[in-house]
Amino acid sequence: MSKKVNLLMFSGEFDKALAAFILANTARDMKHDVTMFFTFWGLFLVKDPNKFSDEDKTTYEKLFSMMTPKGIGDLPLSKMNFAGIGKDMLKEMMLDDDTPPLSAFLKGAINKGVKFYGCKLSMEVMGLKKEEMLDQLEVVDAKTYMEDALASDMQLFI
Amino acid sequence: MSKKVNLLMFSGEFDKALAAFILANTARDMKHDVTMFFTFWGLFLVKDPNKFSDEDKTTYEKLFSMMTPKGIGDLPLSKMNFAGIGKDMLKEMMLDDDTPPLSAFLKGAINKGVKFYGCKLSMEVMGLKKEEMLDQLEVVDAKTYMEDALASDMQLFI
Amino acid sequence: MSKKVNLLMFSGEFDKALAAFILANTARDMKHDVTMFFTFWGLFLVKDPNKFSDEDKTTYEKLFSMMTPKGIGDLPLSKMNFAGIGKDMLKEMMLDDDTPPLSAFLKGAINKGVKFYGCKLSMEVMGLKKEEMLDQLEVVDAKTYMEDALASDMQLFI
Repeated sequence: MSKKVNLLMFSGEFDKALAAFILANTARDMKHDVTMFFTFWGLFLVKDPNKFSDEDKTTYEKLFSMMTPKGIGDLPLSKMNFAGIGKDMLKEMMLDDDTPPLSAFLKGAINKGVKFYGCKLSMEVMGLKKEEMLDQLEVVDAKTYMEDALASDMQLFI
Repeated sequence: MSKKVNLLMFSGEFDKALAAFILANTARDMKHDVTMFFTFWGLFLVKDPNKFSDEDKTTYEKLFSMMTPKGIGDLPLSKMNFAGIGKDMLKEMMLDDDTPPLSAFLKGAINKGVKFYGCKLSMEVMGLKKEEMLDQLEVVDAKTYMEDALASDMQLFI
Repeated sequence: MSKKVNLLMFSGEFDKALAAFILANTARDMKHDVTMFFTFWGLFLVKDPNKFSDEDKTTYEKLFSMMTPKGIGDLPLSKMNFAGIGKDMLKEMMLDDDTPPLSAFLKGAINKGVKFYGCKLSMEVMGLKKEEMLDQLEVVDAKTYMEDALASDMQLFI
């Protein structure tokens, strides 16, 4: 029987994003419904790196855009502090192992029909405009997240 | 129908606390029951900054008190490493956007009747006394958390 | 009535591991079923520090082994940045308080019958071999995790 999975994506980190997309795609392969709700730093996962608009941005918002990831290709690792092991090394190890890159997992999630929600309040605070994000992202409020999460069989905060 | 939400607050970080209180307050506005269980670094969210007692503390516990946040106003960001973007900048952006400060979300949670549990074991290890915490905090053990979480419709580890 | 708890262990950090094992052991004491699924950095919690094999490892995998924790005794803290408060201090405070060390909580979890799953894909990418891990670890794929999680009454991402 089809179940429902809800993932709240708070962290904008390469390794956590990888784990989350593997879970989301696996659940879709098993015919379960999956929603990913992107909020705070998690919104960097669904920024379109090819779209960018400085229009209507405050000085802080412009600075923020400059200093933060342009999209999923720019995410840092959550554990840079493990004696300096870097994202490049992890990416090489994934390559050696024929693991697809993170962007392929994101594309897979879109193709498999994972539902993408973006947090309205976070986007407003960070100055992220809908037109800077992936087309698949639907902007919703916290109430919509809560309804979706409470209607799900499992919820994770990632 | 009223449901039940359980949030385990492990991280003592400004941005995660903000996300958690927004979820908790949203759920209460929807008439759902909400419990927040504060443990480890999460306990700094519910320390009363105006109460402080060195009585009966070991040297380590005194040192620990001195070096860690006095309360919710002192929390660091989880992502200071994003090219140095600091908490002050995020707070300015929230102000620009008419988003209330974190302390207002905490007060909101208290007023709306979010249940606050504090982890007994963590408090003992960290040397935090009940009289240093917000009045609303009820000190409970891990078994009480587990019962509450298992009786809930969703659980997040934040 | 017996319920089912599923903990996804992503982070290889001392303090989060401590919190997770306390929850797992508490749930077992209450006669609930508990699964811990170790993935990414979480796999360092279930490496056997006395077993190590360089056989069949690529140069990156060997380097990775050298630079990362040998087992549960080597885990860093998640919050080293709180003004430099270190793991040694937290361990001293636990000792002062008669709290058992992390390794005792791990042994407790094994003795109490917590189910240990290891993520096949992460192990392959990181070059971790089954024979380097604790005997109790069963290597499974993401689908097995998802089935177990969806059959559980609560799930946490730690």
